[in-house]
Amino acid sequence: MNTFGRIFRVSIFGESHGQLIGVVLDGVKAGIPITEQDFTYDILRRKSGKAGTTTRIESDIPEIISGIYNGYTTGAPVTIIFKNNNTISEDYKIFEDMPRPGHADYTACIKWHHFNDIRGGGYLSGRLTLPIVAAGVIAKKMLNLPINAKLTELGGISTECKDDTIEKILLQSQKEGDSVGGIVECTVNNVPVGLGEPFFDSVESLLSHAIFSIPGVRGIEFGDGFMAARMKGSEHNDTFDEIKTINGEKLIYSIKNGSGGINGGITNGNSIVFRVAFKPTSSIGKGQSTINLKSEEKEILHIKGRHDVCFALRTPVIVEAMTAIVIADLINVTKL
Amino acid sequence: MNTFGRIFRVSIFGESHGQLIGVVLDGVKAGIPITEQDFTYDILRRKSGKAGTTTRIESDIPEIISGIYNGYTTGAPVTIIFKNNNTISEDYKIFEDMPRPGHADYTACIKWHHFNDIRGGGYLSGRLTLPIVAAGVIAKKMLNLPINAKLTELGGISTECKDDTIEKILLQSQKEGDSVGGIVECTVNNVPVGLGEPFFDSVESLLSHAIFSIPGVRGIEFGDGFMAARMKGSEHNDTFDEIKTINGEKLIYSIKNGSGGINGGITNGNSIVFRVAFKPTSSIGKGQSTINLKSEEKEILHIKGRHDVCFALRTPVIVEAMTAIVIADLINVTKL
Amino acid sequence: MNTFGRIFRVSIFGESHGQLIGVVLDGVKAGIPITEQDFTYDILRRKSGKAGTTTRIESDIPEIISGIYNGYTTGAPVTIIFKNNNTISEDYKIFEDMPRPGHADYTACIKWHHFNDIRGGGYLSGRLTLPIVAAGVIAKKMLNLPINAKLTELGGISTECKDDTIEKILLQSQKEGDSVGGIVECTVNNVPVGLGEPFFDSVESLLSHAIFSIPGVRGIEFGDGFMAARMKGSEHNDTFDEIKTINGEKLIYSIKNGSGGINGGITNGNSIVFRVAFKPTSSIGKGQSTINLKSEEKEILHIKGRHDVCFALRTPVIVEAMTAIVIADLINVTKL
Amino acid sequence: MNTFGRIFRVSIFGESHGQLIGVVLDGVKAGIPITEQDFTYDILRRKSGKAGTTTRIESDIPEIISGIYNGYTTGAPVTIIFKNNNTISEDYKIFEDMPRPGHADYTACIKWHHFNDIRGGGYLSGRLTLPIVAAGVIAKKMLNLPINAKLTELGGISTECKDDTIEKILLQSQKEGDSVGGIVECTVNNVPVGLGEPFFDSVESLLSHAIFSIPGVRGIEFGDGFMAARMKGSEHNDTFDEIKTINGEKLIYSIKNGSGGINGGITNGNSIVFRVAFKPTSSIGKGQSTINLKSEEKEILHIKGRHDVCFALRTPVIVEAMTAIVIADLINVTKL
Repeated sequence: MNTFGRIFRVSIFGESHGQLIGVVLDGVKAGIPITEQDFTYDILRRKSGKAGTTTRIESDIPEIISGIYNGYTTGAPVTIIFKNNNTISEDYKIFEDMPRPGHADYTACIKWHHFNDIRGGGYLSGRLTLPIVAAGVIAKKMLNLPINAKLTELGGISTECKDDTIEKILLQSQKEGDSVGGIVECTVNNVPVGLGEPFFDSVESLLSHAIFSIPGVRGIEFGDGFMAARMKGSEHNDTFDEIKTINGEKLIYSIKNGSGGINGGITNGNSIVFRVAFKPTSSIGKGQSTINLKSEEKEILHIKGRHDVCFALRTPVIVEAMTAIVIADLINVTKL
Repeated sequence: MNTFGRIFRVSIFGESHGQLIGVVLDGVKAGIPITEQDFTYDILRRKSGKAGTTTRIESDIPEIISGIYNGYTTGAPVTIIFKNNNTISEDYKIFEDMPRPGHADYTACIKWHHFNDIRGGGYLSGRLTLPIVAAGVIAKKMLNLPINAKLTELGGISTECKDDTIEKILLQSQKEGDSVGGIVECTVNNVPVGLGEPFFDSVESLLSHAIFSIPGVRGIEFGDGFMAARMKGSEHNDTFDEIKTINGEKLIYSIKNGSGGINGGITNGNSIVFRVAFKPTSSIGKGQSTINLKSEEKEILHIKGRHDVCFALRTPVIVEAMTAIVIADLINVTKL
Repeated sequence: MNTFGRIFRVSIFGESHGQLIGVVLDGVKAGIPITEQDFTYDILRRKSGKAGTTTRIESDIPEIISGIYNGYTTGAPVTIIFKNNNTISEDYKIFEDMPRPGHADYTACIKWHHFNDIRGGGYLSGRLTLPIVAAGVIAKKMLNLPINAKLTELGGISTECKDDTIEKILLQSQKEGDSVGGIVECTVNNVPVGLGEPFFDSVESLLSHAIFSIPGVRGIEFGDGFMAARMKGSEHNDTFDEIKTINGEKLIYSIKNGSGGINGGITNGNSIVFRVAFKPTSSIGKGQSTINLKSEEKEILHIKGRHDVCFALRTPVIVEAMTAIVIADLINVTKL
Repeated sequence: MNTFGRIFRVSIFGESHGQLIGVVLDGVKAGIPITEQDFTYDILRRKSGKAGTTTRIESDIPEIISGIYNGYTTGAPVTIIFKNNNTISEDYKIFEDMPRPGHADYTACIKWHHFNDIRGGGYLSGRLTLPIVAAGVIAKKMLNLPINAKLTELGGISTECKDDTIEKILLQSQKEGDSVGGIVECTVNNVPVGLGEPFFDSVESLLSHAIFSIPGVRGIEFGDGFMAARMKGSEHNDTFDEIKTINGEKLIYSIKNGSGGINGGITNGNSIVFRVAFKPTSSIGKGQSTINLKSEEKEILHIKGRHDVCFALRTPVIVEAMTAIVIADLINVTKL
């Protein structure tokens, strides 16, 4: 399904080299002020053109098609589209016979019996994360909670390095016709206690579901994450340290927050914290062996054209968008 | 929601110290042979009683209530129940005022305004993983694919150690009134190419959704997982190495399988491989500070009673069950 | 699927001649007071034993299995079961080969390749409306709105006849080994304005979906119903006649209410009014021709055993239950 | 929600006087041949311009935006849009204060706190049935079953009248500034046995859900419909009359088909037959009383502008589309 959410529902459509791509949002309350300018900042954060990113630069101008009238949401489905302008009609057709390692050329062709639109990846392109960013902007407006994702690691190196290590990694990787991955950390503050459900609708279930919808994710961990499996209970458990009275309710907090803000699938009032592993960009100039499905011979493939050295650089805003989408839906469902 | 799945749908109900717990399965095809004996092996694997697990031993006898007639599924909803026998009515009530670190006592009480049944964790108990294991048995019958999960790490040590290290860790931890976590790896072989959808219904999205529904999970990673973020594209990409003709279709495979069997959210025919981090058991004898919500004072809590030193020991079969549930639903939806 | 609802979700399970039948309710808010006595009145209304109904009399005692603790809902799934006691193990097997006209013997056998449990109709029995009535009791508690359904017509005669016409029809029908149908009208008062959505989640869509889930329904109409198709716009349109200020909001009402309380799929504050046509009971003593699927010959079938002369007599409480379930879910979703 | 369906899913968006309206279809199999010409015939049937219909004539040219490539569906979401050209920017704003009887002006304004786009009805316009017709075209392609809906009654008169009665009714109604309703009958032939589920996903439940999503429907009945409530069991029951061996399976049929092709919610192989009551057009020239929400005074409203005398004339193709959408989804789900 191309839809996510129970009440606040996000559906995406379009292809990388089609006429346009877009998103339909269902369950948006009436009366939220939205203008096309509201999208500018987040769309810019996703945009390529900076060091380490592709030279395919799209204008990425959002057009509001429905659901917003006189500057406010109307309660009807919100539709936002983006025209595709900067497509290069080089022949992607060869990837049907010689699938690119790491890409979905092969799985898509088998799944859809070669009827899929393979140009630029078609529907499976990272370009479809643009309407997701737009959906995230509206979700953030609905939520008004601080959601912050940032790249904390690139090519195995902390991005907090003060020197020019990161830049060197990118340049070196580009020179070698290779690519690097990265890790994004996301934090949501001021989360109300009680969002999420035990078992199938745990906050981790819903967030991981949304995050793994972003192309190129290889792992997700909450709070202490994989390290928790190596800790003792007395080390990992979050002791309760503080008590605060908020809106007449006594709430207690942990300083450590090794659970990432969630117990039993339900938010505990601490910040939600999770980390996402992004693989290195699959398209690389270096030769890679593949199999030509026509000749049934091994061949060496050099992928030319425009691509990110490290697409993880562009993902923090996508992680934020997915997070906002999940929390916006959860708050709706929980407030019931 | 207490339901998971689109066509093959699993709903659980019951409480740890109620009369019984159970599961309703919707979308089970008619004509699958099932007897109560089919559940024995997997239920036994989940059972406590071995070193490192709790001494609350339940009979765990499945009773088929509906949907199976004369030894075969009928097409109607399948209901399986388990009676609760071995409950100790010690006073869990105190945890409402003095929530246990790492548990959901606090979040549940706030979420449900203290109306929740806190005895033994109520609905949020790990006991509810028993009906999930039962659902997994039926999903496995529907699938007939090799699904294998095993504990690969306990307390930070590989379980492949030939000596008695693992046993020592468990004993030491028990002596200290502490607990340890672990890592479970799951593999699914012979997976058809083409399961899953790009974006919101990616195989990783659905599997992670189900896996994070298991209490105590802190992270999940597929294939190279978090390591992928530290690899170069030329290292992480799965080159295509082999071609096989299966049912008249030419399929290609990678030897490395760093993607864990999935590209673009869609299975590629390689084995699905993922790892799950389980936290250490939250209930420990060691003193932990909590806050008494009545007195608003810090207190030191020693949790007595029966609990696992390492509940991760009991989880591989639960991971398998969740995996089987996801794949059974995916195969249904994909075969359309 | 055996589930209905988006947030307040109802799932039924069990078979007519199995051990028990039941219902799982998801999305029930915590803190609603419920005792087993709350079910008595509505269960009694559905019960057989009165003139015109079957002599299979079940004890129909609800057992609360989960989700209710100390007399209040806990927020966890609510499960209610009913044991089957009064089953007669006559041979229903013959109906597999000689399907009863008007029943689902034939469709069920073909759909599930003869694996279905045909005893007493199995899962397709009207007995499954008992857990629906139980779900309705909880929905009514959640709503606290006046919902009233009554039989307005039986065998083509208005039930408002003061004399003993109705009784005579039932006796005559019974004597002839035949059966009669009826019409039920349902009214919901004090409905808030604004429930429902245009198009796919119109109030009529959701109510008709639920009502046609009751076995034996042949039609539904809202407000002026089929008569509307024969009226002029100037006759059918609801003029606005009254203005009231309720909670600071100016609301307007129509005296005529030919729309049945709904415009554009959305409640308008007038009473919701609809009528449901129930077919005559399918099981009749009179001979009916069927085809023996084994011999491939026509045969005359006389259905013996216990059955209602007019099962429509027992349906008003089921119509109310379904209505309450729909409105309870709608109020949840709309209050967002 | 603006979405319908479980696997084959239809979402609509846009407003009557916005830039464009459209539909996103999910779950469309790859490899179905579709061109823009395939939509011509059904779009023409819905079009206005004939006697009794409005003079707002839109070009109604479908533009395929995604999911179709080189003339075949790709497996990705199919998006089809229609530009709005012929909108007249008269002031609909007055209907916010003086709601039109029979329309959703009032309910929409209250529901969405006056943020709704009221121009031409906004999202609640009958114009949104155009993308539904487009969805129906694709559903019909997927199904390849004969689905036929026709107007059988107009203004209370059978459309089979050979003389010019119908024409006279329309002219007379137009002259009086009034409107008339109608009844549409829909038949689906060659339906496989076994579609649908007992209870919540009965074929009647799903069809009625979809049909009541069409603006202006007041009732639906299957087979003998409301008449069944006035028949005896021996009159209404469908005896089995014929046996045919189809694909090696013995199937039996009824000549009478009073059940409309469905028993126990499941198709029985006979034709599905149902009738739909459409109200008279709500917009009429004749004066109607309404209440001015600002002045709180009663006023007489004369609705000028372009509108159908009998919009039911345009609905048979919409009824077919909804039917095709339901059956296409059911076949998917049932074939599992």
